[in-house]
Amino acid sequence: MAGKEQLTIRLSEVDNVVVARADILPETEISNEAVTTAAHIPAGHKVATRPIAKDEAIRKYNQIIAFATRDIAAGEHVHTDNAEFRSFARDYAFCEDMRPTQYFTGDAVANFQGFVRPNGSVGTRNYIGILTSVNCSATVARYIAESFPKDELANYPNIDGVVSFVHSTGCGMANSGEGYANLQRVLWGFAQHPNFAGILMVGLGCEVNQIDFLLDAYNITPGPTFQTMTIQDTGGTRKTVARGVDMIREMLPAANAYSRQTVSASHLTLALQCGGSDAYSGITANPSLGAAADLLVRHGGTAILSETPEIYGAEHLLTRRAVNEAVGQKLVDRIEWWEEYTRINSGSMDNNPSPGNKKGGLTTILEKSLGAAAKGGTTNLTDVYKYAEPVREKGFVFMDSPGYDPCSITGQVASGANVVCFTTGRGSVYGCKPSPSLKLATNTAMYRRMDEDMDINCGQVTDGDATIAEMGEQIFNRILEVASGSQTKSESLGFGDDEFIPWQIGAVM
Amino acid sequence: MAGKEQLTIRLSEVDNVVVARADILPETEISNEAVTTAAHIPAGHKVATRPIAKDEAIRKYNQIIAFATRDIAAGEHVHTDNAEFRSFARDYAFCEDMRPTQYFTGDAVANFQGFVRPNGSVGTRNYIGILTSVNCSATVARYIAESFPKDELANYPNIDGVVSFVHSTGCGMANSGEGYANLQRVLWGFAQHPNFAGILMVGLGCEVNQIDFLLDAYNITPGPTFQTMTIQDTGGTRKTVARGVDMIREMLPAANAYSRQTVSASHLTLALQCGGSDAYSGITANPSLGAAADLLVRHGGTAILSETPEIYGAEHLLTRRAVNEAVGQKLVDRIEWWEEYTRINSGSMDNNPSPGNKKGGLTTILEKSLGAAAKGGTTNLTDVYKYAEPVREKGFVFMDSPGYDPCSITGQVASGANVVCFTTGRGSVYGCKPSPSLKLATNTAMYRRMDEDMDINCGQVTDGDATIAEMGEQIFNRILEVASGSQTKSESLGFGDDEFIPWQIGAVM
Ligand SMILES: [Ca+2]
Ligand SMILES: [Ca+2]
Ligand SMILES: [Ca+2]
Ligand SMILES: [Ca+2]
Ligand SMILES: [Ca+2]
Repeated sequence: MAGKEQLTIRLSEVDNVVVARADILPETEISNEAVTTAAHIPAGHKVATRPIAKDEAIRKYNQIIAFATRDIAAGEHVHTDNAEFRSFARDYAFCEDMRPTQYFTGDAVANFQGFVRPNGSVGTRNYIGILTSVNCSATVARYIAESFPKDELANYPNIDGVVSFVHSTGCGMANSGEGYANLQRVLWGFAQHPNFAGILMVGLGCEVNQIDFLLDAYNITPGPTFQTMTIQDTGGTRKTVARGVDMIREMLPAANAYSRQTVSASHLTLALQCGGSDAYSGITANPSLGAAADLLVRHGGTAILSETPEIYGAEHLLTRRAVNEAVGQKLVDRIEWWEEYTRINSGSMDNNPSPGNKKGGLTTILEKSLGAAAKGGTTNLTDVYKYAEPVREKGFVFMDSPGYDPCSITGQVASGANVVCFTTGRGSVYGCKPSPSLKLATNTAMYRRMDEDMDINCGQVTDGDATIAEMGEQIFNRILEVASGSQTKSESLGFGDDEFIPWQIGAVM
Repeated sequence: MAGKEQLTIRLSEVDNVVVARADILPETEISNEAVTTAAHIPAGHKVATRPIAKDEAIRKYNQIIAFATRDIAAGEHVHTDNAEFRSFARDYAFCEDMRPTQYFTGDAVANFQGFVRPNGSVGTRNYIGILTSVNCSATVARYIAESFPKDELANYPNIDGVVSFVHSTGCGMANSGEGYANLQRVLWGFAQHPNFAGILMVGLGCEVNQIDFLLDAYNITPGPTFQTMTIQDTGGTRKTVARGVDMIREMLPAANAYSRQTVSASHLTLALQCGGSDAYSGITANPSLGAAADLLVRHGGTAILSETPEIYGAEHLLTRRAVNEAVGQKLVDRIEWWEEYTRINSGSMDNNPSPGNKKGGLTTILEKSLGAAAKGGTTNLTDVYKYAEPVREKGFVFMDSPGYDPCSITGQVASGANVVCFTTGRGSVYGCKPSPSLKLATNTAMYRRMDEDMDINCGQVTDGDATIAEMGEQIFNRILEVASGSQTKSESLGFGDDEFIPWQIGAVM
């Protein structure tokens, strides 16, 4: 365990800089690094731990974040006046950093208590879901779900709830193209998610996003635990609610027949997310979550990194971890798609560190994006997926999405995530259904102020109470408990009924 | 009143075509038009009522919808083989069709019972609203509203309810530009809407759409009935819900002090909307609603036409009704904006009648868009507004929006609409808060099938039970009753908690 007396945080053994835990005065001895500061090092900023020659790479997170623009002595403040971004970085060097994964085997593989579905997939929760094809069926879906409050389900103790997923789109949109494909993938991803024992899809009838098109696209035949209906065919609000309530009542015995059984952690698919980031996100919670992701991968599970705009500029470090060139190229293709998407929308991906970022100690866009990418740990990138596309590969994967939390997580859950870890510095109160979401605070002050919403305090790293590896183990163990049924803070508070946000692309017509 | 025996519908005295009420066989005498059909006229299709010379204009709704491509005899089927679109139509001819409005005066002006606010605006309902800056505060806002069920408000009989407005955006977006401006206008439009006696705005704290920016932009100072807070400042979910409940509890006495009083119909602002349209929309419900809009304008009130993609191709007929060139030019500017918006999003505005439209009897894009524009009646176009911009002019105005119902109506209500009329052929179950929404069925079959959701049956026109002028009066009288407190079907069913959809423009980041 890192001692409380330590003034700095070392993110990797091979780094030539460390990060100030708090403001450090000039001429201060940093005993564990055997250097003395040559200048004031503000909290979150970097100090050199050995001499760095002009043009030598500056390493943080065991990654190149910049190059020295002059010789830098041990103890110097490393920032924009002696370090800079260089374009070497854009060499994708596919697979160059691929390493064999040190899998746990036999009895060493972790277990959890999950719901095993007929197709072999494993749920961490046991909900009945009501999906909507369009906003026009939102209220009806909500009313059906509201007909099954806790006391109505008292005889079905294995069911976690009946939950509706309402959204703001499904009509007034093109009936083809990327926006339409996103919505279809999200709906179908939820429909087949292992955290559901049964699904009812409710449409209006005349919407662009026809339920029948979805059934056709995925070759689905409705059955006792997968029902569909439209309001127009059923004859209006009241009749549709009544019929939907009947349909779900008939699903309850089959849903309740599922019970938790011991399964390997390889059945966990973890959504990695950050939101409301601060200067500590990339130092405490994100690398700690990365350490947990590494553990999960070594236990045979899957971790999904996303939020493409937030890894922009560091994508070449992911392509180097790709298991083959095709996987690396998929990531490059998504990056190029985003450059075009933002360009036609009068935006830009080129968010070089802002003045606020620089004040917080971030020297280059690489360093900034590395802080976000640190959630992805260090194992090989086994595949790259479009938004809400089903994740089929085990290991560390990437799913394309915006950085916007509820929209990104909606895609990750549709891709198959059955547990979510969300790091936050400013303090998000996000919660998800049907997948439990753990919130990881980046700093102790916010953790204490919002302790009713935060699950884990990664501020322990800067407080000197835990190393990143130790935090990674804490997080991984908590993931296993939560996957086995232990409630997250956001579940206890009841979140997840208003956070379903399929990624809208294209004109609203 | 039109006799039940009539086979056709005449949309204007000056038209040279009428529309078949149902399939008409060849050689059938249409007695009221004194013509005999020369061919089979399918339901919804047009028949010539007098000879039309080659190149002469074909008129429906007292508008040019096409030109004859050859001489057409009385009784002939008028469709794509003898009529065509000609580009004359693109002559905007600003103000050419402007006519003096026949205002009602003195005792003839209709009244209703409304809630008069301190600034002189008049509400048709008396809600307390909880607005959210971002999806991240949606669940907290919902919980605050759910703390005030009907029995909690039993001592406050003049309050219609406490309602939260949750949405899917507010972060992961640009902090300037059209999407951001739309969201700010919607939030501020709702915040100052006369149907609210009090407003609480809830944010997370770190979102792009900062509450403080909104307050700055509109120069607002919070007070007892306009409160704001963020979850991060307040310290998390539970504390924010508790504080929000306290804030609203303190607003209840002041909100309940409002009671209905007699005011002129000039204080009504009517949102005109159609959705789930069918072949009868442009023949029954839309022109009937247009007749009601004309009445409202003649009583000094305001009617807002919207859904820009659905008037496309007929915009020159609105510019001709413009009160001045500047107003006409504003509409042209919005049309050009839409051409660019759809172009960069790989779409097109050029929805010439589709095969389905043509089968239904629509010959040209003009005729199609005229059916939608018929909701706007015949009075002068007094102004044109951007989405959710406050409507300041009385009379018939246009507010730019998509056709997508909940998104368009969200903008119309933000612009000031305190009552909504929504025509539907296929059968929408839409409902709104805070403004009551009447649903007008275009055909009797759907009205009967969905009678628990439909307020008015405009199928009476095709059934021969009412003329369009008579339907317009029915609608207008029902608007006055509803504005005075009578519940619409969608209000009785409780709609309006999931239909708040600000128009998102731009990349989700
Ligand atoms: Ca995020
Ligand atoms: Ca809830
Ligand atoms: Ca929503
Ligand atoms: Ca519409
Ligand atoms: Ca409701």
